[in-house]
Parts: sequence; C-alpha cells; structure tokens
Amino acid sequence: MSASLVAIIMGSKSDLSVVKPASEMLKKFGVAHEMRVMSAHRTPEALSAFLQKAPAAGVRVFIAAAGGAAHLAGAVAAQTTLPVIGIPVSSSKLSGFDALLSTVQMPPGMPVATVAVDGADNAALLAVAILAVSDKDLAAKLVAYRKELSDKVKAADAELVSA
Amino acid sequence: MSASLVAIIMGSKSDLSVVKPASEMLKKFGVAHEMRVMSAHRTPEALSAFLQKAPAAGVRVFIAAAGGAAHLAGAVAAQTTLPVIGIPVSSSKLSGFDALLSTVQMPPGMPVATVAVDGADNAALLAVAILAVSDKDLAAKLVAYRKELSDKVKAADAELVSA
Amino acid sequence: MSASLVAIIMGSKSDLSVVKPASEMLKKFGVAHEMRVMSAHRTPEALSAFLQKAPAAGVRVFIAAAGGAAHLAGAVAAQTTLPVIGIPVSSSKLSGFDALLSTVQMPPGMPVATVAVDGADNAALLAVAILAVSDKDLAAKLVAYRKELSDKVKAADAELVSA
Amino acid sequence: MSASLVAIIMGSKSDLSVVKPASEMLKKFGVAHEMRVMSAHRTPEALSAFLQKAPAAGVRVFIAAAGGAAHLAGAVAAQTTLPVIGIPVSSSKLSGFDALLSTVQMPPGMPVATVAVDGADNAALLAVAILAVSDKDLAAKLVAYRKELSDKVKAADAELVSA
Amino acid sequence: MSASLVAIIMGSKSDLSVVKPASEMLKKFGVAHEMRVMSAHRTPEALSAFLQKAPAAGVRVFIAAAGGAAHLAGAVAAQTTLPVIGIPVSSSKLSGFDALLSTVQMPPGMPVATVAVDGADNAALLAVAILAVSDKDLAAKLVAYRKELSDKVKAADAELVSA
Amino acid sequence: MSASLVAIIMGSKSDLSVVKPASEMLKKFGVAHEMRVMSAHRTPEALSAFLQKAPAAGVRVFIAAAGGAAHLAGAVAAQTTLPVIGIPVSSSKLSGFDALLSTVQMPPGMPVATVAVDGADNAALLAVAILAVSDKDLAAKLVAYRKELSDKVKAADAELVSA
Amino acid sequence: MSASLVAIIMGSKSDLSVVKPASEMLKKFGVAHEMRVMSAHRTPEALSAFLQKAPAAGVRVFIAAAGGAAHLAGAVAAQTTLPVIGIPVSSSKLSGFDALLSTVQMPPGMPVATVAVDGADNAALLAVAILAVSDKDLAAKLVAYRKELSDKVKAADAELVSA
Amino acid sequence: MSASLVAIIMGSKSDLSVVKPASEMLKKFGVAHEMRVMSAHRTPEALSAFLQKAPAAGVRVFIAAAGGAAHLAGAVAAQTTLPVIGIPVSSSKLSGFDALLSTVQMPPGMPVATVAVDGADNAALLAVAILAVSDKDLAAKLVAYRKELSDKVKAADAELVSA
Repeated sequence: MSASLVAIIMGSKSDLSVVKPASEMLKKFGVAHEMRVMSAHRTPEALSAFLQKAPAAGVRVFIAAAGGAAHLAGAVAAQTTLPVIGIPVSSSKLSGFDALLSTVQMPPGMPVATVAVDGADNAALLAVAILAVSDKDLAAKLVAYRKELSDKVKAADAELVSA
Repeated sequence: MSASLVAIIMGSKSDLSVVKPASEMLKKFGVAHEMRVMSAHRTPEALSAFLQKAPAAGVRVFIAAAGGAAHLAGAVAAQTTLPVIGIPVSSSKLSGFDALLSTVQMPPGMPVATVAVDGADNAALLAVAILAVSDKDLAAKLVAYRKELSDKVKAADAELVSA
Repeated sequence: MSASLVAIIMGSKSDLSVVKPASEMLKKFGVAHEMRVMSAHRTPEALSAFLQKAPAAGVRVFIAAAGGAAHLAGAVAAQTTLPVIGIPVSSSKLSGFDALLSTVQMPPGMPVATVAVDGADNAALLAVAILAVSDKDLAAKLVAYRKELSDKVKAADAELVSA
Repeated sequence: MSASLVAIIMGSKSDLSVVKPASEMLKKFGVAHEMRVMSAHRTPEALSAFLQKAPAAGVRVFIAAAGGAAHLAGAVAAQTTLPVIGIPVSSSKLSGFDALLSTVQMPPGMPVATVAVDGADNAALLAVAILAVSDKDLAAKLVAYRKELSDKVKAADAELVSA
Repeated sequence: MSASLVAIIMGSKSDLSVVKPASEMLKKFGVAHEMRVMSAHRTPEALSAFLQKAPAAGVRVFIAAAGGAAHLAGAVAAQTTLPVIGIPVSSSKLSGFDALLSTVQMPPGMPVATVAVDGADNAALLAVAILAVSDKDLAAKLVAYRKELSDKVKAADAELVSA
Repeated sequence: MSASLVAIIMGSKSDLSVVKPASEMLKKFGVAHEMRVMSAHRTPEALSAFLQKAPAAGVRVFIAAAGGAAHLAGAVAAQTTLPVIGIPVSSSKLSGFDALLSTVQMPPGMPVATVAVDGADNAALLAVAILAVSDKDLAAKLVAYRKELSDKVKAADAELVSA
Repeated sequence: MSASLVAIIMGSKSDLSVVKPASEMLKKFGVAHEMRVMSAHRTPEALSAFLQKAPAAGVRVFIAAAGGAAHLAGAVAAQTTLPVIGIPVSSSKLSGFDALLSTVQMPPGMPVATVAVDGADNAALLAVAILAVSDKDLAAKLVAYRKELSDKVKAADAELVSA
Repeated sequence: MSASLVAIIMGSKSDLSVVKPASEMLKKFGVAHEMRVMSAHRTPEALSAFLQKAPAAGVRVFIAAAGGAAHLAGAVAAQTTLPVIGIPVSSSKLSGFDALLSTVQMPPGMPVATVAVDGADNAALLAVAILAVSDKDLAAKLVAYRKELSDKVKAADAELVSA
C-alpha cells in the first residue's frame, strides 16, 4: 500500500469508467490516492484487511462506489471511523435508484456521505474538502477550483450572449 | 447456540415486532430455530462468528430482516453458501421501498431470496419449503398448511355468500 | 420430462436471452434442469399439468421468469409447495420495476424467493444453494465457486493496482 | 350461484371494506351481482370452478380486487373471455402502488380493465357501462347518474359561492 | 363518420405507431372501427362534437391513447357513458409512468378502463370483449384467439424443449 | 360572477381545506377573487361556461386544484389563454404523486404553472406575482411580504440562538 | 443587458439544446428576450447581480432551466418577486425526476411556476400568457397560436381519416 | 457567533424536532456547535453573511437540513469550500423523497455529503468523523462510540436469546 490519503474502492471492475473521474480530480488537486477493486460480498476478508491497514498507511478518507444493492460504502463505514463517501452507480436496470437508496439510507451510527448517482467528481471534491479542513494549501486549491468553475460558466454565458 | 435449523437474524431490536411472525410460523411447523439481533454494521464480528459456527451447529437456512439501507441479508449471503432469505422492513420514512431494493438487487454470485416488505410469515414458509426438499414430513405439513389457508378462504367466501 | 432437479419456466419466448444465464450456471454446477416456455395466463392448463408431474419426475426447485405484471412465479408458487424462485424481467417500459413488485409482494402463505431484476444467474445459484442443503457435493462446489468469484475480484484489483 | 350479471371477487376477506362500494353502486343501478372471496393463490381450483360456471349462470362482467402482488384480476382474465375489471387495493406497505402495476401491466392477449387504487365505485360503474352497451335502460340510468353527480358538484359550488 | 363500433382516438399524430396495433387487432376480429387524432386540450370542440355524434353513428366503445399528463381518456369518459378504454403512452421522459397515473387514477363517477403502458393490443382485445358480451360470434372469436395465443406458447415451448 | 381578478377552482368540495390558504393569501394581498367548485369531468359545461365569461368579468389568472388523475388545471388551460396555475392535491392513496404528474406533464401548447403538492399558498403568491407584473402597488406588497417572511425566519433564528 | 421582457437562464451550457425551443417560441411571439448561462451554485454573485439589474432593464418574467438537484429556478425566485418559471431538465440518470421535484416542491412563500420535464416550449408560452395579461396584442397572438395548434391536430386527423 | 466547530442550519423552525438529535450527538462528543434557522430562499443575505463569517469564527463543517425542494445544503455548498452535510427532511407529502433528491443530486463541483432522510444523528457523526481526521481525541471517542453501539446490539441479542 502506497502512502495514499484517499482510497477509492469500487465493488466491481466494471465500475471503473464511472469511478475514474474521482481519481482524475484527486490528481488535479495533487492528493495521493489509490484505486482498488474490492467487494463487500465477494472479497470481504480482503476488504477488511485493507481497511485495517489503511489508516496506518496514511489513508484519511474512503470513497466507495457500487451499483444495485450497493452495500460497499456501508461495509466500509462499518469497519472504519474515518469519513466514508459513497457513490451510487447506475449500473442496474433501475437507473441507480437502487444504489442511491442502498447507499444513503444507512442506519444510525454508520453514516455514509452520499453524492449523486455516478457523481465520482463530487466524491473526490468532498474528499478534498474533508482533507482541506486541516490542510490550508488544499483549502486554497479548492477556492481556486471554484473560481475555475465559475469562470467556465461565465465564459459560456459570454459566448451565448455574444452569439 | 442450540440445534436450530433456521436462524432468524434482525439488524435491530426494533425490528422484533415485524420479525416475530416468522418465529411463530416456524414453531407451528415444529422447525427448531432461534432469533438473534446482530447488525451487519454495528456487530460485524459477532455476525461473522455466528455465521461461521451456525452450519456446524445445524443451521440450514438463514432469515435476515432489516430496514433502510438493508445490508444484513447481503452480508449474511456473503459469508455463507447456505440459502439466505431477506425480509425488507418498512421502518424508514420511505415505506420499506429502500429496504426492498437494498435486499433484492444483489450482485451476481450472492443471491438473497427476497420476500415482500415486512413479509416475515412468508420468509418462514420459504425456509420450511427449502428444508422440506429433503424432509418428507415437513413437505406433508406444508401441503396441510396450504389446505388450511384454502379452507380459511373458502370459509370466508361461504360466510360472505350466506350473509 | 427428463429427470431435472430444477425447472426453469419463462412466461414468453422473448424472455429467453434474459433467462439463459440461469441454465448456463446450472450446467456449470452439473445440475440437471430443463427450460420451458409456459404462461400463467396463456397456457394455465399446460402449466398446471407440468407442475403436477414435475415433483414425481424429480424437480425440487422451480425458477420462474416474467416481465410486466409478472404473475408466473406466483402462479407456480400457488400450485406447488416446492421452493419457487422468481426472476423479474425488465421487458416493459417500466424497467422491470413492475415485474419486481408483481413478483416479490406475494400475499401471506405463498412465498416467492425473488432475485434482482434480470438476475438469472443468481436465481440459478439460489436453486443450487437450496439443493445443496441436502447435497454435500453441491455445497462444496458452491464454496469453490465463491472462491472463483473472489479470485476474479482479486485479479481485477491486482491488475488495477499494478496498472 | 344466483343469476348475477356481475361477479365481484376479492382475494381476501380483509379487502371487503374497500370492495363494498362496488356492491352498493351495483345495487343502486339494480344490477344483480354477487360478492365472493376467492384467491388466485390460495383457492385456485375454487376460482377456476367458479369462473367456468359463471357465464352459464348469467355473469357477464367480472370485477376482481386484490392488493400487493395483485394477481387475481389477471388470473380471472386468463380463464374467461368476458370483460374483467381490476381494482388495485392499497393494503400493502407500498400504498397500492404494487397492486396497481401488478394489475394493469398485463401481457398482450390478457387485458384487465384497471381502475384507480381502491376505486371500487368506478369498477362498478365500468361494469354498468359495459352491460349498458346492450341494455338501454341501464344506459339511461347511467346518464341519470351522471346528472346526479353533476348536480352535487353544482350544489357544492352554489353553497360555496353563497357562503 | 363511418359505421364504426369502436373509435380509437389518439391525442397526437406522434402516438400513431403505438396505437396502430389496436387497429390491426380490431381488423383481425372483423370489428368496424376508425382511428382519429383529437386532443382534449388542442381540439376540445372537435372532440366534443365527435363524442356527441359517435353513439348515434354506431360507436359502442372508445379507446383513447395519450402520453404525459394524459387527460384524453378522462376527457372522453366525461362526455360519454359508453365504456372508455385508456392507453397510457410512454412518450415523455418519465417512461409512461405519468401517463399511467393520469389515465388510471380517475375520480369517482368517471371510470377509465386502463390497460398497460403502450398496451394497444390489449385495449383492442378489451373492446372486443366488451362488444362480445352481446355478440356471440365475437365471443367465439375471442375463444379462438385465446387458443391461438396458447398454441403459440406451446409451440415455443416445444421448440425450446427439442432444441 | 363578481369582479374577481383571480378565480380559484377546485374539482371537488373535499379539496376545500387544502385550497383555502390560497383564498386567505389573496385576501391578505387585497386581491379580489372567488372560489368555485367545478369539475373537468362532472360539470364540464358549467366549467366551460364559467371560463368563457370569466375574462370579460375581470378574471386575469386561474388557479385550479385537483387530486388523483388531476385534469382540472389542464382542462382550464385548454379553454383559456390566461395564465393557469395548478395545485396537485394529495387526496389519493398515492400521496399526490399522481396529481403532480397529471398536472405538470402537460403537452406542448398548453402550459400549467404547477406548484408543490397541496401548495395553495404558493399558488396564490404566484397569481399575485403575475398580476403584479402590471400593478406596482401589488409588486410593492409582494416585496413587503418577502420581508415579513424573512423577518419571521430571523426571529426564529434569534429565538433559537438565545435559547 | 438588452431590453428583454423575458430572461431565460440555464444552469449549464449543456442545457442549451433543451432550452432553445423556449427562445424560438418567444421569437415567434415577437417577445424580446435573452438567454443566459448562470449557475445558482457556480456563479451565485453573477446571478444575483443579473437578477437585481434585470427588472430595471425591463425583464418581467424569468425562465430558469436546470437538471439534477435543480435549484436554479428556486434561487431566482428567492431574489425576485417577478414570476419565475422553472423547466426541470432530464439530464441526470434519474430521467428528470429529480429535477422535477427539486423545482416544483418549493417552500411556502417562494413559488416556481413549474412546467413539464424538458418543457421549454410551454415555459415560453406561460411567459407569453403572463405578459399577455396586460398586453392585448400578445393575448390576441396567443389566441391565434391556439388556433394554429388546433388546425394542426385537425389536419393530422383529416389525413388519418382519409388514409 | 460563538466558537463553534460545527454549524447546524435548518431551513425552517419546524425542522427543529428532526434536527435536534444532531445537536445532542455533537454535545455527547463534546463538539462545540450552534443551531441556526436560516433559509436559502427567505433569508439568503443572512445566510451568506453567516457563511462568510463562520470559517473565521472557527466553523469547520456545516450541516444543513431542509424538506421539499431542499436547496439549503446546496446553497451552503455554493458559498463555502468547507464540507457540507445535508439532511433531507421528510416534511412534505412526498415522504422526504423530494428532499433526498434535491439534496443529493448536486451538479459537478458542488458536493453535498447527504445522509438518510431525517438522519440527523448520522449527520452529526459524519461531522465528528470529518473533524476527527485531524483530532486524535475525537477519533478515539468515535471508536468508543462504535463500541457502545455494538454493546447495545449485543445486549439486545443476549436479552432475546435468554428470553
């Protein structure tokens, strides 16, 4: 395990294309991270082993992505007290609606910070915001990123107005 | 652990009133069973320990009941190859709709035999049907029970017709 | 009727592509089975005749797949006390949501072991698990299959980590 | 069996309070009818026997009411070519939403004329409209009833305006 | 207006492809009918004029198809006491779910016999069944059609079994 | 008909308690209005007659409230080019979900300005905002009302902070 | 800012294709308008600045279009007392269902006149209707447009009848 | 403003009973916090002023609770780069379903860490977990709290087993 601050776990290799923007966003912010394929149901021991070692290795935030009866984020939350962010993936016939409810409706005591269906970019930004609570450089980068977003919208507006 | 054929696990003590009919139905069929409170998220080790010992102790079918982001049945299914029956419980603000999707939409490889929202009686009957595959006495009792159900409907019909 | 342990019934020939993985999975486990097209609404007599003869011919578990107002699994459950597994098929405009509710929300006394929308593979695995309750060889194969699934996830993880 | 023109079938005695307005409405129109408790799942033979004899006994329209995975109307439709009207009953935790989809989403070839959740009065009126296609007296009564409805709304309007 | 027994009304020309199977089915049964484009909202007067003249011209059953906030069937039902069959059309972004609720949840006094989303064939069959209440030839054709459906399923079954 | 600027129409007298806040809000703003009970389905002629006379009598905005398959607002919109505001009423078993879709999903050409389920107060405020486009006094009152709302929230905040 | 009567604001440039029909419809009615890209979340200050200046510049009605957790129309409504029309955009995985609820379920005091998912044409027509309350020429154009719509439906009907 | 680490904002005083458990949980963990009533729509300036001052005053995490078209958490997220946790409140007729989608389906760039409908306790625990990333004492308390939760479940299990 490398010295990652954020560990992105996906329940299935097929979720990679949905999850990738989270990795790209973290890269943009210079946040060390790793992507893993580990299943709450198919490799529970590997997941447990990883979750036990991760904090000592430097992980501070987990991001977990899964579709259907998406238990992965909850399973991670049950085995760590670090913040866990859940990405409901729209891979089933029910458009991610099942994954959303399975991720967000967690019982008292086990919160999962849930973002939008397929919202990998926002999961990464939330991880950055959490790390930025105690990292002023990261906080400054977030403010800069907001300006970037704002500038893009303003440019689109200017383009439309002048069209 | 007693010599139970069926283990009924609920994620929270507050699910007891919904789950109880399963125990009563198993009692009616003379099927040894036990009811346990074990949480996929709050007592994962206790759950794992129980699931590992249960088969040797005689358990042949699991019934798991949970509400909200109902991961319990899936967590049980991930740790046993015995049949797992899931009861989605209507305890959240979303009427059990979340529990239904969280229980039934399991990923390939990890089936949960899901029954109706709050359908504890049917969970028990499904457990009986599974055991009855290799137990002729139980199979005969199921046939008799069906007749009982049928007779009740016929009696209700007769009463209404003669009213 | 051959000496099948599992009978897979679909309500319409058009469900075949969704249902086929169930047959392939049973083949993988060496479980004798047959696939049939029989409709609760269009061939109720053929269905009844089949269901009456099936147990004597060796069938121990039924799998029923249907879309829309999916009554097939329930109709099978009403005519047998053997375990019935229901696959809701996503063939209608409502994404299988209708089939899911029509299959899982069965009334007291008539359980259908419902799996995910289009979840044919899990239906087969559930049938195997039910048969494995009294068949040690099959139980061992299920354990081996779990290892196979786990190995695949681990391989995907290793590949991603080393990428 | 009396000489009923309309047979109202409910899947469970507990549906009686929802179904009763259908009987009262038919009484108001002077349409001979009977109410029966027969279950697609619990008394399929009784249901079949009734459905076979009913046409000869004079039944021209069936009304079937059921909740949850409401298969009753479909089961009736599968065994008769007479018009079948379905009332989805809101008896489950899912507010009748399950019953609505289970009743209305019938496969090609087996229509069920579905009315609103718990819409027993409209089921009866639809039965009357169907009979009225070949019964001028009944058609006249329907026109009169519409006037009655209209007068009630007008009276409510007048009352509100003068309030 | 020709001497149609059934009038099929669609709210928009764009619904024609969904509605056409109703016309084909009626043709198959030899039932005189006509297809019209008339909107509850855009041509209310044309609709009213048609509905007033239709009964005298021989129409006995209306079929109305519309998508979105599908008011057409209800608007027809409000202006006739003849049976009205509603087809919810899946033309909006909400998959016909809006059209289903807008068609089926009619208030007391104004029933619409609702069929499945895009269920034009069943709408036609329901119209045939209604006409067949007082037309023995048509009733016989319906019985024959059922046999046809049943034979198709049996042929598919035979083909699959022998495959 | 009095010289009302706003006409509030409800489909059934039973909607009065939901609709009343609209009348109270208009009273608060000093906007002349009237409340009527008129049904798209039960009194279509009365509705049409009213809608034809209303503009000449001074009505500038319509508010229509209905539950279930809520066609009232759409029926009003079809017969006037004045702005029509729709209130979906939560009177059915489906919590107003049906009324919302039936009101808002109107076809091209016939907009209904839909507010929240049971949102009578907002319907009135929207009517005021529409009238205020050409009425400066009303516009000023709206600004004042916003301040009132804001002050209430601030008072609640102050109370909580000092608690 | 030009002398627009209607300002159409979209939350993202990617909504342009959905929003464009609103602009085309306003052009058809000769209503001066402008299209802007401004985000409630990404450019709140630009939005506020625009909303403050718009009334003085002549804007009388706002149209706001957004998808997902669509807050744009509500954010506009919070900062103006002019009428605000909301278009829920179907850009997320949840088919616009999320945007619809986020737009229409506004709290008391802050109405948004919501139209159908992706209903840009109706948003424009609603804006025209609002302006037409105090503009007789525009009112006349609306009446003419209704005739146009009606004529199109009648032409489609004639074509179908003569086919 | 006191030296709070967490600011809990609710959109309306009526949400207090739902939100209170968040305050109680933070108190249990000894985390300084404050509860405020501020509305994204009714007091946007007060909200903005608070959000600008809060970081300097020591706030590190925001919790925002709102029902219906719940824009509050998103509005907070748009004005801060600190982590924002959203609690969807079940105050509307749509059971919190609208608030859930309005809170979680945020656009790229503006994440809201959403918890379950009415999940105030988990919102507080998530805030604690975020603060605990850089506070070892708090991290230790979280571990202890997990043990407390686990012990409660074990006690309930023991009680049930011995009953």
